[in-house]
Amino acid sequence: MAGNVTAVPTVTLPDPSWVCDVGPIGDLQLRSWDLSDDLTDPTVEVVVTPIGGRSRLARLAGLPSLKVVQVVTAGYDHALDHLPRGVTLCNAAGVHDTSTAEFAVALILAAQRGIPEFVLAQQRRAWIAHRAWPALGDRRVLIIGYGRIGRALAARLAPFEVSLTVVASRPREGDEFVERVHGFDELPWLLPRQDIVVLLTPLTASTRGLVDAAFLAALPDGALVVNIARGPVVDTDALLAETASGRLRAALDVTDPEPLPPEHPLWSAPGVLIAPHVGGAGDTFRPRMVALLREQLTRYAAGAPLLHVVAGPGG
Amino acid sequence: MAGNVTAVPTVTLPDPSWVCDVGPIGDLQLRSWDLSDDLTDPTVEVVVTPIGGRSRLARLAGLPSLKVVQVVTAGYDHALDHLPRGVTLCNAAGVHDTSTAEFAVALILAAQRGIPEFVLAQQRRAWIAHRAWPALGDRRVLIIGYGRIGRALAARLAPFEVSLTVVASRPREGDEFVERVHGFDELPWLLPRQDIVVLLTPLTASTRGLVDAAFLAALPDGALVVNIARGPVVDTDALLAETASGRLRAALDVTDPEPLPPEHPLWSAPGVLIAPHVGGAGDTFRPRMVALLREQLTRYAAGAPLLHVVAGPGG
Repeated sequence: MAGNVTAVPTVTLPDPSWVCDVGPIGDLQLRSWDLSDDLTDPTVEVVVTPIGGRSRLARLAGLPSLKVVQVVTAGYDHALDHLPRGVTLCNAAGVHDTSTAEFAVALILAAQRGIPEFVLAQQRRAWIAHRAWPALGDRRVLIIGYGRIGRALAARLAPFEVSLTVVASRPREGDEFVERVHGFDELPWLLPRQDIVVLLTPLTASTRGLVDAAFLAALPDGALVVNIARGPVVDTDALLAETASGRLRAALDVTDPEPLPPEHPLWSAPGVLIAPHVGGAGDTFRPRMVALLREQLTRYAAGAPLLHVVAGPGG
Repeated sequence: MAGNVTAVPTVTLPDPSWVCDVGPIGDLQLRSWDLSDDLTDPTVEVVVTPIGGRSRLARLAGLPSLKVVQVVTAGYDHALDHLPRGVTLCNAAGVHDTSTAEFAVALILAAQRGIPEFVLAQQRRAWIAHRAWPALGDRRVLIIGYGRIGRALAARLAPFEVSLTVVASRPREGDEFVERVHGFDELPWLLPRQDIVVLLTPLTASTRGLVDAAFLAALPDGALVVNIARGPVVDTDALLAETASGRLRAALDVTDPEPLPPEHPLWSAPGVLIAPHVGGAGDTFRPRMVALLREQLTRYAAGAPLLHVVAGPGG
């Protein structure tokens, strides 16, 4: 039997706390590796990559037995560039849904109900005069991009007495939140009927610059544009023009360029709230990512198909 | 028949826009009166009082045929003081629920997800560093006071993946949101198990100062106290002590004293977000108040029982 003895497969995780939280998983050996140094261990078959550190991904090429790369984000274009031939790439679809959907609601409510004004008034120690604020209730809300996060947002908005419409690249029957999922071609007809538009679409060739001058011009006065997708989905100059005039408002978790440089006029555009790309950064991420890794590595150890395979030979 | 001819009853509304939106109602004559001048018109039987202007309510005594006073707020203690003998008082229960419940969510999400920090960073034109923010998801939330607004808040929080507990003066069976409504006597056992506590209780002898040093000491480190009820439900000095140390956080729509004077230390307490009592000020109020007035005045014209009678001979 000696000829059949093989080394125990090793899985690397971004830091020791992940090793502690995820393990043990069957016979797999778990160790910490943040990709900041070279690693050529021939037992390493699975690498879970850390957040950030995009340039370090070149070190994946040094692992002779690598089978699977698991990223901890929903986006994976950064890992595709460094994926060795024959290696399977899995993303972390779903683990950021809770954080991102709730941050979209946070931006909407903050912008509608005057939170930025109250924060600035508090700095001046000023109790500002009573007036009627636009509520979220009774508003017409359009979600553009209706995948997992879009549905998580729809679920959260449903009890707020809003009128909800959704648009996606593939028009289809609706669900418990909307009667139907409209296609992008219906936007010219839908946009004039909205108070709030939430962008949740992935950045693709067809969504880059989707929110341009014509898109914005179709919105009614006072409408709020919420971008929780990717900065380049919005034409920043067009948005600047419509907010500088005070005609539209915006709440942005992402910008183009990003990070926004200090001299950029978007910082001081009236009615614009800017957050530094933190939609997915709520601490609901960790327990959901740990659960996904446990499931994924248990499947790997058992030779079962992996979840969320996005490139390579598959699970 | 001349002896039976009676004047058409008159209803006063706070300003001409209300007359326009509410009327016509059967044979009732609607006119505008903001109580800023004397009125002795013997045909006036119903007065809808304006927001604010508490001292003007003394003018109600000048109306010889007054039957009903309708306030546009849920609170009515101000009107009780000036209610002439034999006159029925109705409040506007329900019309502020939407606005108030959604503002509670706005305060919670703003405080949890770092909105005040982002607003201040935006003033400095600074893209602040990525870190994990406490989400609302996975948090244990306690609502204290479980009437109409409490239920409206529970409905809005339900999709956010929170663990919800509620407390009210009358313990009872739960509903679709909670298994049971706990009593105030269970607070010592419940408080150490909460991440977020939302105060929605009316101000009564038993809730004044409810959130005192002992209450706050029972909360775990980092807990968020949200007051959307009345300022004096919280002992301000006790809250100051627990926030100055950085142990607890707070998001307050109401304060004690109110308005908060510029020199008050609460303005600059760390981790404290202050809004100027705007919970009910969302613009969802107007259409709901118009609908209530139409229903109420239609009932009055028909001699049917009035809604939301809170004092006087009844509907």
